[in-house]
Amino acid sequence: MSQPFPFSAIVGQAAMKQAMVLTAIDPGIGGVLVFGDRGTGKSTAVRALAALLPEISAVEGCPVNSAKVEDVPDWAGVTSGKIVKRPTPVIDLPLGATEDRVVGALDIERALTRGEKAFEPGLLARANRGYLYIDEVNLLEDHIVDLLLDVAQSGENVVEREGLSIRHAARFVLVGSGNPEEGELRPQLLDRFGLSVEVASPRDIETRVEVMRRRDAYENDNAAFMKKWRAKDSGLRKAILAARAALPGLKTPGVVLHDCAALCIALGSDGLRGELTLLRAARAQAAFEGADTVTRGHLRSVAASALGHRLRRDPLDEAGSGARVARTIAEVLP
Amino acid sequence: MSQPFPFSAIVGQAAMKQAMVLTAIDPGIGGVLVFGDRGTGKSTAVRALAALLPEISAVEGCPVNSAKVEDVPDWAGVTSGKIVKRPTPVIDLPLGATEDRVVGALDIERALTRGEKAFEPGLLARANRGYLYIDEVNLLEDHIVDLLLDVAQSGENVVEREGLSIRHAARFVLVGSGNPEEGELRPQLLDRFGLSVEVASPRDIETRVEVMRRRDAYENDNAAFMKKWRAKDSGLRKAILAARAALPGLKTPGVVLHDCAALCIALGSDGLRGELTLLRAARAQAAFEGADTVTRGHLRSVAASALGHRLRRDPLDEAGSGARVARTIAEVLP
Amino acid sequence: MSQPFPFSAIVGQAAMKQAMVLTAIDPGIGGVLVFGDRGTGKSTAVRALAALLPEISAVEGCPVNSAKVEDVPDWAGVTSGKIVKRPTPVIDLPLGATEDRVVGALDIERALTRGEKAFEPGLLARANRGYLYIDEVNLLEDHIVDLLLDVAQSGENVVEREGLSIRHAARFVLVGSGNPEEGELRPQLLDRFGLSVEVASPRDIETRVEVMRRRDAYENDNAAFMKKWRAKDSGLRKAILAARAALPGLKTPGVVLHDCAALCIALGSDGLRGELTLLRAARAQAAFEGADTVTRGHLRSVAASALGHRLRRDPLDEAGSGARVARTIAEVLP
Amino acid sequence: MSQPFPFSAIVGQAAMKQAMVLTAIDPGIGGVLVFGDRGTGKSTAVRALAALLPEISAVEGCPVNSAKVEDVPDWAGVTSGKIVKRPTPVIDLPLGATEDRVVGALDIERALTRGEKAFEPGLLARANRGYLYIDEVNLLEDHIVDLLLDVAQSGENVVEREGLSIRHAARFVLVGSGNPEEGELRPQLLDRFGLSVEVASPRDIETRVEVMRRRDAYENDNAAFMKKWRAKDSGLRKAILAARAALPGLKTPGVVLHDCAALCIALGSDGLRGELTLLRAARAQAAFEGADTVTRGHLRSVAASALGHRLRRDPLDEAGSGARVARTIAEVLP
Amino acid sequence: MSQPFPFSAIVGQAAMKQAMVLTAIDPGIGGVLVFGDRGTGKSTAVRALAALLPEISAVEGCPVNSAKVEDVPDWAGVTSGKIVKRPTPVIDLPLGATEDRVVGALDIERALTRGEKAFEPGLLARANRGYLYIDEVNLLEDHIVDLLLDVAQSGENVVEREGLSIRHAARFVLVGSGNPEEGELRPQLLDRFGLSVEVASPRDIETRVEVMRRRDAYENDNAAFMKKWRAKDSGLRKAILAARAALPGLKTPGVVLHDCAALCIALGSDGLRGELTLLRAARAQAAFEGADTVTRGHLRSVAASALGHRLRRDPLDEAGSGARVARTIAEVLP
Amino acid sequence: MSQPFPFSAIVGQAAMKQAMVLTAIDPGIGGVLVFGDRGTGKSTAVRALAALLPEISAVEGCPVNSAKVEDVPDWAGVTSGKIVKRPTPVIDLPLGATEDRVVGALDIERALTRGEKAFEPGLLARANRGYLYIDEVNLLEDHIVDLLLDVAQSGENVVEREGLSIRHAARFVLVGSGNPEEGELRPQLLDRFGLSVEVASPRDIETRVEVMRRRDAYENDNAAFMKKWRAKDSGLRKAILAARAALPGLKTPGVVLHDCAALCIALGSDGLRGELTLLRAARAQAAFEGADTVTRGHLRSVAASALGHRLRRDPLDEAGSGARVARTIAEVLP
Repeated sequence: MSQPFPFSAIVGQAAMKQAMVLTAIDPGIGGVLVFGDRGTGKSTAVRALAALLPEISAVEGCPVNSAKVEDVPDWAGVTSGKIVKRPTPVIDLPLGATEDRVVGALDIERALTRGEKAFEPGLLARANRGYLYIDEVNLLEDHIVDLLLDVAQSGENVVEREGLSIRHAARFVLVGSGNPEEGELRPQLLDRFGLSVEVASPRDIETRVEVMRRRDAYENDNAAFMKKWRAKDSGLRKAILAARAALPGLKTPGVVLHDCAALCIALGSDGLRGELTLLRAARAQAAFEGADTVTRGHLRSVAASALGHRLRRDPLDEAGSGARVARTIAEVLP
Repeated sequence: MSQPFPFSAIVGQAAMKQAMVLTAIDPGIGGVLVFGDRGTGKSTAVRALAALLPEISAVEGCPVNSAKVEDVPDWAGVTSGKIVKRPTPVIDLPLGATEDRVVGALDIERALTRGEKAFEPGLLARANRGYLYIDEVNLLEDHIVDLLLDVAQSGENVVEREGLSIRHAARFVLVGSGNPEEGELRPQLLDRFGLSVEVASPRDIETRVEVMRRRDAYENDNAAFMKKWRAKDSGLRKAILAARAALPGLKTPGVVLHDCAALCIALGSDGLRGELTLLRAARAQAAFEGADTVTRGHLRSVAASALGHRLRRDPLDEAGSGARVARTIAEVLP
Repeated sequence: MSQPFPFSAIVGQAAMKQAMVLTAIDPGIGGVLVFGDRGTGKSTAVRALAALLPEISAVEGCPVNSAKVEDVPDWAGVTSGKIVKRPTPVIDLPLGATEDRVVGALDIERALTRGEKAFEPGLLARANRGYLYIDEVNLLEDHIVDLLLDVAQSGENVVEREGLSIRHAARFVLVGSGNPEEGELRPQLLDRFGLSVEVASPRDIETRVEVMRRRDAYENDNAAFMKKWRAKDSGLRKAILAARAALPGLKTPGVVLHDCAALCIALGSDGLRGELTLLRAARAQAAFEGADTVTRGHLRSVAASALGHRLRRDPLDEAGSGARVARTIAEVLP
Repeated sequence: MSQPFPFSAIVGQAAMKQAMVLTAIDPGIGGVLVFGDRGTGKSTAVRALAALLPEISAVEGCPVNSAKVEDVPDWAGVTSGKIVKRPTPVIDLPLGATEDRVVGALDIERALTRGEKAFEPGLLARANRGYLYIDEVNLLEDHIVDLLLDVAQSGENVVEREGLSIRHAARFVLVGSGNPEEGELRPQLLDRFGLSVEVASPRDIETRVEVMRRRDAYENDNAAFMKKWRAKDSGLRKAILAARAALPGLKTPGVVLHDCAALCIALGSDGLRGELTLLRAARAQAAFEGADTVTRGHLRSVAASALGHRLRRDPLDEAGSGARVARTIAEVLP
Repeated sequence: MSQPFPFSAIVGQAAMKQAMVLTAIDPGIGGVLVFGDRGTGKSTAVRALAALLPEISAVEGCPVNSAKVEDVPDWAGVTSGKIVKRPTPVIDLPLGATEDRVVGALDIERALTRGEKAFEPGLLARANRGYLYIDEVNLLEDHIVDLLLDVAQSGENVVEREGLSIRHAARFVLVGSGNPEEGELRPQLLDRFGLSVEVASPRDIETRVEVMRRRDAYENDNAAFMKKWRAKDSGLRKAILAARAALPGLKTPGVVLHDCAALCIALGSDGLRGELTLLRAARAQAAFEGADTVTRGHLRSVAASALGHRLRRDPLDEAGSGARVARTIAEVLP
Repeated sequence: MSQPFPFSAIVGQAAMKQAMVLTAIDPGIGGVLVFGDRGTGKSTAVRALAALLPEISAVEGCPVNSAKVEDVPDWAGVTSGKIVKRPTPVIDLPLGATEDRVVGALDIERALTRGEKAFEPGLLARANRGYLYIDEVNLLEDHIVDLLLDVAQSGENVVEREGLSIRHAARFVLVGSGNPEEGELRPQLLDRFGLSVEVASPRDIETRVEVMRRRDAYENDNAAFMKKWRAKDSGLRKAILAARAALPGLKTPGVVLHDCAALCIALGSDGLRGELTLLRAARAQAAFEGADTVTRGHLRSVAASALGHRLRRDPLDEAGSGARVARTIAEVLP
């Protein structure tokens, strides 16, 4: 069972799958946060995503997956100039990983044996140009969260200690899963995620039976099951690549910018990251659908995922944030 | 007294013994949690289980008990390709074991004397393909719990620190015992256990006198006592091996899947792990009974153990979770 | 004053002296907990006990006092096969002793100078086959308590760290003293003690004057005082040895087992350790009295010490646990 | 996108931009604190400031950017006497930087390999004569805050430990950003900032659309965008240099001193730092405007930024500090 | 001013001076606790005591001040057998002293350079046969308190760690000062002090002027002042030596024992340490007064100091413990 | 601006300046505590004091500034016997200084490279015979406070750890500044300060304008400003030296002692340090004024500073401690 469950074989969970596809098209959207009960397949989906993503071109041996030779850091000691294909990196940040392992550290062995100050890159280096996955992100220690916020904002990992002064690119899509009942996320961390989606156990018997059937087939008849779904995954991968290519040529009418601002003001979302994300996500959605112009329909399709986690809590409004976003969309973008 | 008390000689405690037998038939069921007062023989039962389990085939000298030569990790330095029989490992996780001892660590001696980064496997390596036993699991430190959750979910132990980046298989059945009065378990940890059972002191004089008699015989007439019960344990071991062999050929009618989903929806259990476990446990029970098809009767026989610990607390329902499961089974699977 | 105060010269405190004598006859009873005000001679009694106990036979130089050459651990490096007499070990566990000192640790000196991983046994090794004394047991740090619970249950000390994996026998009688006003004992720790007794300052002037007289004689006329009481202590030691010899041949009628179970059910004691301890203590008492059969009278004589600390607190019963045990004995074993 | 967003291209946020320009004219004003919601461009503005600032003259290789050879510290080991141009340093203080990295530390490598006590300068050294930027200053650890307060007051970094006794100049403008909802600043830290400004998301659609347009142009048509705004930034830089030159010759009538004191007394600001800062900021504003005399108008223009964070909270005055400052200015400086 | 203020020149504070004299006569009384406001001369008195005490005979170079060659510990490496005179040791236990410094530790220098496990004795060794002074004993860290309790009870310092297993005599008189307003003492620690006294600022002008005069003379005319009071101190030292010699021959009528017990029962003091201390203190007082028989008068003279700190708090009795002791003495020993 | 602001040029703040002058005349008065709002020139004044103080004579190279060769500590390794002039030391105790840096520590470099246990003196050594300045003394960590209390009381720094046993003179005047709103001082620490004064922002415009004018001149016309005030500082320094010379010959009539005691009793100040300090401060004031006899007028002039911080809080007296002292002086010393 070393091959993950196929992305396309996941039953339901449309919003989660859409969010993952959009960030695969435009990583600049900035991360996906998946909320929900335990046992709803969050981890399964992330591991499935890793198998779905297209490959990247990178300098052979480069610890930060640089696309060009001139971007390879000095400290990497890379001599090859060859460009190779690699899977898009999907890096797990295990609970309990030390700060040294995350940001990188002095290579103590080389320091002791050769008297050199050598940098040993960490998980942030490996995640550059790919995904950083944090399961149960709400259980992460505060000092690791602070550090991720710094890096996620600047796109750069700065290591300043023990006489080291190292910087390297660290642009990645954060994917976090969590159960809000077990600890809230700090608003700054929430804001770093471009999109957020909620997942829940299906409530009807047929869907749940279908989940059992597919899981059963995956476990007991693995080869046939994988073959059946690999084709679907492959089609999806091609659609992502096509959307990436179409993105720069997409038209964005002024009225769409106006709609973005109007919706965010109506929702009272803090700051300006809301509308910027909404716009990018709508463009990615338009490109995925094969449109040549972003429309209000694309905004509507992604608005809940892009804005739902950026609302201030309104104690007088008993509806949850999902309902408030839906109602406001209906009013502002009729 | 170096030989443990025989499994078959345990007086009463049918649910606990059933749960242990089922996970011996299908380790994929995922662990047993034994709740109850102190002094009710929980530890005795686990030590008895170790003696009951069939042997496994493993590569000689492999620190993770690999079944095939190609699965032996690189870092293990194993040169033999010989397959040997070993007892199914039952590893104690002692309270106070350090994280290094649990997950493994850099072998500092070799690092210092030979300048090599060598990995020294921990308890998780030794538990692969066997059992990991945690007495008083509710007293375990949080960071060890987090780590066990990670490993239990992925079946893999990832060690990322001090310049090491090691992965090895770590598939084991967690067996935990605990007294809920001395500290609750976090719901995520609960959910990792496939089955849960409660044990209590017997309330009638005859049973308690029988416990005293057997304990007395075990302590004061050990040889005769062990001989008498060894035969019963041996019969049970054979039945487990037969059930394992029968498991793949077992038929699972669609109505049984439907029953699983219906019962879990009726009970409101979070996520989908409930029905998946229920199904596996019912299959193991069917195989143990020698049936060729899983039936509603098998579901009924294991439902309390498989679902009792996955219920949300319902403050309006004064009956405990055991009673709620029983009542719902009676309604849904009449 | 290097010789302790003689056991026989302790004024009053009959229950405490009985409990100590019974565990000297059968160490399997499992420890004595002495509760009471400060200044009531608890420490004096334990130091007196050490001088009273008979010698043991052990392999010369064995760090765990093994009775037979084949039981000497590998790591001990013992070459002699000679059996010698030693005083029964009575080991103090000083407040503030580190975990390393208690369980044993890597011998760092040998590791550094000879590059060997050698085990340096701790206090638990030295206490094997003897007594481990903890003054103010209620002030002990939690992690040391956890560790003692583990070892006391299994009779084995397991050291798993820094690349060591050592096991050795560690069967000892825990003797603890404490003042319940300064911190409660966790129920699990309570349950590990076979017997518990309360001591208090005598309330009548004559007894207190006698205490002062004996203490005065011990301090100011030591030689004469020790001589006077040594004979009494010697007689007591012989009685203990005789009782040990008689113990295996003692008869235990079924009605006595029935009485044990009935009493424990009536008292509502948790688990089954209550009746098992009660039975062993009654047997030791019978052997000490020279009887050939255990009787209800022997049960009555030891029931308060064996069961008093195993009761759940009953908030509706204002009488203390001592009174409840006494009343229930009178009802159940009239 | 390695070039920051141009300072001049920031939409709105006049108070923040004014505060940054004034401290660029007279660093003695002492730092800028930018309060506000997340996503309002605080970090963008600081990074833009770095690109705007004029260069400084410094001794080549000097780790504290000394202007003259005689100011280079002994420990720096600088042999060159050449004066070079450098960008004004803008140093980030990353969350999680250790105290050693901030103040400097013993160079352990040199200590171990050459047996020398060498000083390795920290971020405070690099910030001398420039800016020290702290994002989310309200999340900074207390001991780092204490240390910054010490240095900010004395203009000198004193390192007293491990046998080192090092002092070096550390005069810098602190720029901090923070969200008061996520933790208050200690009043002493507040008082160290010469000026404070609040930023908020614009509330009108047109401004927000303009922000999106510029951001879009910056991201999707970077070269043209940068070219367009570089000229504006350059003009601003020249104006700053002109104001610096004019500052010493500026006249300050006595009535302006009287106005400063009267305003601070009326506002009840603690201590005397309020009026001293107000005076300096008004002078810088006058120089920026090309005036030859400071007037009441200049005071009015900077009073809110210079005094708003130095007021005691007045629980009887429901207006915020901004409104109180504005009202008092209107009364005292009509 | 390196010579301390003379003991005899202390104005007033009779109870404190009496307590110190009595423990100088019989160190077995067990320590003095001095309670009171700051600035009342507690520290001055302890430093004065050090100068007053007679010399002891000890083996030259012995780190634990052994009186006889055969008592010198093995680890001390003492080769001389010469007996010399030394001042009675009065050792300060400074706040913040580490546990290693208190109990002694492995001599790391010798361990590293010579590969020997050598013991480096601590303050407890140096205090043997003398005084251990703790200023502000109520601010002492708990683990140091626990350690002192252990040693004070057994008269022996046991060091069990890092492979050391060292014991040495550590009999000393604890002298503690403290202000009960700044933290209570744990009852066990209280009980270790034989005597307790309260000191307070004098309330009348003449006494306070006298204090100022003497302090002034001590500071401004030191030589004359010291000469004047040295004679008085010398007389007191001789009286102490005479009392020590007389102590063994002192008669203690039975009625005095009876009085001790009656008084302690009437006061409800915990345990038996109260009457044992009372008896010893009364004997020392009798010897100091030159009596040949202990009388009720001697008991009365020392009862408040010996018993005042051993009372349980009686919430129904509004008088302080001093008043309760005084009233009870008047009733029981009329 | 490396020269501090001149002491004489400080506007107002008479009590603070008087307190500093008095401790310069007689360091035995024991320290000055300056309370007040931030920004009132506390730090400025302390730095000004350093420049005002007369030089001391000390052995060349002595790390504790010993006046005589025979007082140089053994461990100092000083070979010169030359007496040189040094500025009176004014040592900053920076927030965050480690305990090692304060009290001194083992010189690890020498220990490792030469195998010697060498002592590296700390800030307390450097402060001997001078001033130790603690800014924001109320933020000091408790263990550093405890340590300072110990040393301030004994005039000696005792370092007992890591095998070191070092003592050296550490007599200094503690000068602390603090804002009582940010944390209270423990009464023991308060009591260590001989004098306390409160400073506040001036409330009238003219004074505040004068402060701005002088500050402006100091910053913008430094040379002329320093020249103008240097003469005033020099005159003050001479007056301090004259007062020091006159102090021993000063007469202190008995009635003055009586007045001291009467005033302290009336104020209910704890202990006797109040009147002793009051007397010393009055003498220093008398000497400063050129009087040959201390009078009630001198007492009145210093009583508020000497006694204001030694009062118990009186919850029934609504006036602050300053007003209570003033009122009581008026009653007792009319």
